[in-house]
Amino acid sequence: MRYYIGVDGGASKTDAIVIDQNGEAHGRGLAGGSNHLRVGIEEATRNVERAVNKALVEAGVAIRDVEYAYCGIAGADHPVHHQRVVDSLRVFFPRGNFIVDTDARIALTGAVGFGPGIVIIAGTGSVAFGRNASNDESRAGGWGPTIGDEGSGFWIAREGLSAIVRAHDGRGFATLMTSLLCEDYDMCSPEDLPRFVYATTTHADDIARYGKLVIEAAQSGDEVARDILSRAGSELAECVLAVARQLHMSDSEFDVAHVGGAFHAGDLLLNPMRMRLNRDAPGATIHPPHEEPVRGAARMAMQAARAPRPGRAA
Amino acid sequence: MRYYIGVDGGASKTDAIVIDQNGEAHGRGLAGGSNHLRVGIEEATRNVERAVNKALVEAGVAIRDVEYAYCGIAGADHPVHHQRVVDSLRVFFPRGNFIVDTDARIALTGAVGFGPGIVIIAGTGSVAFGRNASNDESRAGGWGPTIGDEGSGFWIAREGLSAIVRAHDGRGFATLMTSLLCEDYDMCSPEDLPRFVYATTTHADDIARYGKLVIEAAQSGDEVARDILSRAGSELAECVLAVARQLHMSDSEFDVAHVGGAFHAGDLLLNPMRMRLNRDAPGATIHPPHEEPVRGAARMAMQAARAPRPGRAA
Repeated sequence: MRYYIGVDGGASKTDAIVIDQNGEAHGRGLAGGSNHLRVGIEEATRNVERAVNKALVEAGVAIRDVEYAYCGIAGADHPVHHQRVVDSLRVFFPRGNFIVDTDARIALTGAVGFGPGIVIIAGTGSVAFGRNASNDESRAGGWGPTIGDEGSGFWIAREGLSAIVRAHDGRGFATLMTSLLCEDYDMCSPEDLPRFVYATTTHADDIARYGKLVIEAAQSGDEVARDILSRAGSELAECVLAVARQLHMSDSEFDVAHVGGAFHAGDLLLNPMRMRLNRDAPGATIHPPHEEPVRGAARMAMQAARAPRPGRAA
Repeated sequence: MRYYIGVDGGASKTDAIVIDQNGEAHGRGLAGGSNHLRVGIEEATRNVERAVNKALVEAGVAIRDVEYAYCGIAGADHPVHHQRVVDSLRVFFPRGNFIVDTDARIALTGAVGFGPGIVIIAGTGSVAFGRNASNDESRAGGWGPTIGDEGSGFWIAREGLSAIVRAHDGRGFATLMTSLLCEDYDMCSPEDLPRFVYATTTHADDIARYGKLVIEAAQSGDEVARDILSRAGSELAECVLAVARQLHMSDSEFDVAHVGGAFHAGDLLLNPMRMRLNRDAPGATIHPPHEEPVRGAARMAMQAARAPRPGRAA
């Protein structure tokens, strides 16, 4: 039996799976984050190894029986960063039978398979990544919390906290989020927010967790929170539309799969996204991913074993 | 002759002045930044001392001849931070004849004197601070780059960089700012932006400098850039209006003075601000500040000497 490893590495967790040549899963392993820009290269490498080892132990498979591993790792996009991650993982995969890629491409494969489609990812950050029938690929978004990430968990949370301080100043409407911030996070004056937001230990994913306030308030009918989720949905749709235009898919039928924690908001986020997409890309079918990113990675390991490429996937 | 010191301490520079009892200036001194959250408490203290010493030398006045000093220092707002700055300056002013205050209040006094009025500050950050005829004071904005600072230099720059990457993705209109980024900053692909924006050495004021791109493009008629400045002007007006409402001034006649680097954009920023203010506060007269913040600080030193308060001004 031949075995393949898929790895999905994000800022806060690393997910690994061992599958066999028939696509059946034998083991799964979880560890801390492996975006080296966030946790450092040593910790990132260690967490990939931890997750993979756990999956191997559960599968009862030795690393020498693994034909190929495919690692989709956040923060490994830029060539310089990519090389650092490859170099640090070479010790663990001494036969060189592994590929390091961005997390967006494995999410796409998990979400829609190897055919045409677009995945819209809205976790802490946001990015759309797509592929057309000619195998051309394209991306939109993914520019990070300061100048991008519109519609992401971070963006939703930031807009929520911003709405709370605007209400406090008398610049914006009162919102239920103010009392939820007090009840859920024990911050009963918005004056306490800057110390949390600007602490050197506070990262984008720490702020993204406050997106929960926006979702809770929107579910209770709060108009300020509903407006934030509505704008987030439109922003995510703009990312999908940009990719569709780049790949000349706007007028055809194609799949759009949505991945990531922000979609816990459900229809409050999805409906405005659908409305915007229906207008400019009526052939788009929006659905949850067929499979998780980590399974997409494992399928790409199987494909890579058939036609291994040195270094980076195109 | 009695002498008074005013200090205006910001993130990137500290300005000090020595005036006499008639308000005449005798010496001026400049040094690096003194927001201790930005440069550390030791560097901040040193820069206050440097600026003050330069002003004293130019004035030919000894520190023992100074009756009172008033220091408006950015980042000294929160009581904990305020106490740190007071403690560290006590060595320099051993007679205790000094007050540490926020930079907003000295800007207000410089801008409109001791009477009623509102100052709108748009440097790296943005904040409105006002006072009514009963001497009540109020603030709006000043929530920092992540959840606030709408209309500030940082905000304008961030919106500009964001517009460049949106155009690159095909999510937004093409903008002249893309080629200006190439010409003025040698960043000819937006792909190079994240490495600058997310470098650990990049602070809000480093990003704020890119506001120049937006102003330049807007002056050349670029609609994307003009829209950013127009929204910035409206945001700044919202801060002023919030303060006017809090102080029950909206229906009366009052002065609004504008201070800070963002106003280098001139009428492209001021006209939308005026339009918004005219609608909800038609009695507002918008003008440049009567005097600089550092002179406001010196006048407050003179006032404090007449009725010294221990510690912090209300």
